[in-house]
Amino acid sequence: MNIRRILYTLGQLIKLEGVLLALPLATALCYGEDRTALAFLITMAGALLIAFLMTIPTKKADATIYAREGFIITASAWLFMSAIGALPFVLSGDIPSYIDAYFETVSGFTTTGASILTDVEAMSHGCLFWRSFTHWIGGMGILVLMMAIFSDSTGRSIHIMRAEMPGPIVERIVPRVRNTAKILYLIYIVMTCVQILLHIIGGMPVFDSIIHSLGTAGTGGFGIKSNGLAGYSAYHQWVITIFMLLFGVNFNLYYLILIKKWKDAVRSEELWVYLGVVAAASTLIAFNIYPMVGTAADSVRYAAFQVASIITTTGYSTVDFNLWPGLSKTILLLLMFMGGCAGSTAGGMKVSRAVILVKSIRCELKRLIHPREVANVRFESKKLEEQTRHGVGVYFALYALCIAAVFLCLSFEPFDIETNFSAAVACFNNVGPGLAGVGPMSSYAAYSDSATVLLSLAMLFGRLEIYPMLILLSPRTWIKK
Amino acid sequence: MNIRRILYTLGQLIKLEGVLLALPLATALCYGEDRTALAFLITMAGALLIAFLMTIPTKKADATIYAREGFIITASAWLFMSAIGALPFVLSGDIPSYIDAYFETVSGFTTTGASILTDVEAMSHGCLFWRSFTHWIGGMGILVLMMAIFSDSTGRSIHIMRAEMPGPIVERIVPRVRNTAKILYLIYIVMTCVQILLHIIGGMPVFDSIIHSLGTAGTGGFGIKSNGLAGYSAYHQWVITIFMLLFGVNFNLYYLILIKKWKDAVRSEELWVYLGVVAAASTLIAFNIYPMVGTAADSVRYAAFQVASIITTTGYSTVDFNLWPGLSKTILLLLMFMGGCAGSTAGGMKVSRAVILVKSIRCELKRLIHPREVANVRFESKKLEEQTRHGVGVYFALYALCIAAVFLCLSFEPFDIETNFSAAVACFNNVGPGLAGVGPMSSYAAYSDSATVLLSLAMLFGRLEIYPMLILLSPRTWIKK
Repeated sequence: MNIRRILYTLGQLIKLEGVLLALPLATALCYGEDRTALAFLITMAGALLIAFLMTIPTKKADATIYAREGFIITASAWLFMSAIGALPFVLSGDIPSYIDAYFETVSGFTTTGASILTDVEAMSHGCLFWRSFTHWIGGMGILVLMMAIFSDSTGRSIHIMRAEMPGPIVERIVPRVRNTAKILYLIYIVMTCVQILLHIIGGMPVFDSIIHSLGTAGTGGFGIKSNGLAGYSAYHQWVITIFMLLFGVNFNLYYLILIKKWKDAVRSEELWVYLGVVAAASTLIAFNIYPMVGTAADSVRYAAFQVASIITTTGYSTVDFNLWPGLSKTILLLLMFMGGCAGSTAGGMKVSRAVILVKSIRCELKRLIHPREVANVRFESKKLEEQTRHGVGVYFALYALCIAAVFLCLSFEPFDIETNFSAAVACFNNVGPGLAGVGPMSSYAAYSDSATVLLSLAMLFGRLEIYPMLILLSPRTWIKK
Repeated sequence: MNIRRILYTLGQLIKLEGVLLALPLATALCYGEDRTALAFLITMAGALLIAFLMTIPTKKADATIYAREGFIITASAWLFMSAIGALPFVLSGDIPSYIDAYFETVSGFTTTGASILTDVEAMSHGCLFWRSFTHWIGGMGILVLMMAIFSDSTGRSIHIMRAEMPGPIVERIVPRVRNTAKILYLIYIVMTCVQILLHIIGGMPVFDSIIHSLGTAGTGGFGIKSNGLAGYSAYHQWVITIFMLLFGVNFNLYYLILIKKWKDAVRSEELWVYLGVVAAASTLIAFNIYPMVGTAADSVRYAAFQVASIITTTGYSTVDFNLWPGLSKTILLLLMFMGGCAGSTAGGMKVSRAVILVKSIRCELKRLIHPREVANVRFESKKLEEQTRHGVGVYFALYALCIAAVFLCLSFEPFDIETNFSAAVACFNNVGPGLAGVGPMSSYAAYSDSATVLLSLAMLFGRLEIYPMLILLSPRTWIKK
């Protein structure tokens, strides 16, 4: 194991985080929040000092890393990044308990959006900005950002990219990993800015526009009002609906559009399944809630918003969907599992995995009837390797096992099954709000400290798609044979 | 497609069912229940007449069947068998609605034990016996019984056996399928008789002893009292606990013991995982319910009984576990998914599939860290074929998809998520009672007719492990290219 390289990369990452903390610091200063500003300043100074010590150049460090190091760097990066990111909340006094602050930060970076806050409107602007900014950083991935910025981190960095980017197949869109990372971040920044502009044009205050755009881009879901987005006009709700859906699409498609390969982008199977599911789910829910809501326009808007919010695992809400009829709640609960497209900022199992699983099932049916025929499975106009298909099947089993484990551990808490199950599902899939006791108008504050730590881990396992965390925490990784 | 052979085999099966109806007929006569006796007599006569017409020997019928025919015979056999088996309930007036009677019969044959009856104690003895006898027939499989009895049904009948017997790997224990079927049924009969005897020795009335032993042997769960087994002594409850666990074990192990290969039987991985899970779950639940129950002996007895009942998907209950704390309920809910061992009469996903999935996960982890090494997976002292492992992964995905689909369709009903979800899980896994509105002291009577049909199909899909039903209902099977 190349421990020196791992520490060096972590050092670079902390340095990057230290620099990024300048933005919430500036926000706090703008709003004259001295205590919050001081909190960010102390954290920043501490982070940069540690980073400086960790990145002292040593004699001829070996830059090569292998798959295992890639997983370990990624998992430990996310653990440390959250540990440091939680400090300003505690130091500023906005979240007194460090465990709660850690939960909130993990929820931010993993773009979950689950909150332990009972009164979000009492938070300082600096902390509110940092909370939403973590969504934006975590959405595309901080290690991807690091690779885009630092030129010396390219020692087989595809391993890190694979470990951090979601989906069953991670490919470079251009030959060099660093350039791939740059392109992805450029698209991400441009789209975020467009959304901010649309909100400002529509009359939303600038601060609110930035916060909600950061939350949408990362498919995170932290807001700044106790009633979610209910207080904003239909225009803003539709803008967010559309942008949530856009950020749930594989970013490679945007690159294809940029290089004028429109046809290839439009031919994506995953895209059409994703849009089809959104359309079907929205229609069903719109009909289902119509008697409650009263007008067709509102029913469609509520339904489309909530479906987009849940399938992209953002977690924003315009109404308390916990009060909707059973059918709508069940659809939303099932959508939490599916999630957005691979290579997007969304969480969940990913649409492409669902498509590959269904294709595998069809293939198995053919094999059962005609045992001697060899059936090929094609996905996105390419032959799907047996190993990829098998890998997706195994991932699904592991995924179900993890959610079951979290659900089982949560059941030590004194809440009903619907609350605990939806909490496990919503955190693991990085959605945020669940049903019943953890519904969109409630918070995770009622859970005990140990459950809070468990759910923080669940969010990290979900965001990094299990393997990096599993490899980091497995004793076998650390015991020498 | 060899339609003639399919019809001929179905005819044989209906003939067998007609003969088996003599037992409930005799029971009804014993208790002087004239109307019930008449109902059985009419059904019997009808079944034998149809069977006679279907099995008229035609000129040189081709006896060969392939995998596809095996699946179709099995699926349609179970559909028809239930359709005929439901008639006595309607004709006798015990269950006035045919849809409800069909649900009850499917629930019997699939060894689910879910009931639409609100007052079981009002049923006639003939119908009560038939209900429990369907458990016994369905437990080991009626087609397996048919193969054991009729000598002319051996045209590649391994395909039928594979389609009806549960588990990822179905093998003949002796070279001839017919002899395998005979051995399995002999073991089954002997074990059932031993249990009946133990109950009679313990002072249970003969009728009750027979009913509960049939329900235990098939891991079904139909009882004859409104309060389940709460009214019987601790001795009887322990006998049932032990026999439920015994019937949840792979019957091949009993054969190994019979031919004195003790060591091979004891070396079974699946057995030890199964027993380990039972022990762990019982211990946890016993501690969890201790404050409610009061005495250690009762806590252990309640916990062991309920764990055995749920993991073997029997569904008997001695207490209303719906009132237990969240942890216990969650454990029971998760056990419903696991189910008993492959090649037993239990339902669920089967322990062996869970073991194979966990081994596949470990193997995938190794492959991620060392991509070039070839990892072999061993199960039950044999190398596990790549195809079997892959098949288990695909089965699991299909299984999850089916349960999600049933859950979604049920959500049109006006019940809460816990009720609908546990109903879907309990029916698909052939457990019987679920939680909340379908808890052990409630029934499925509140569901609408369409939901009742859906749940009947879910039980059949679950019992036959999805593929036979899917192939039967797939339009592609019937449309000629």
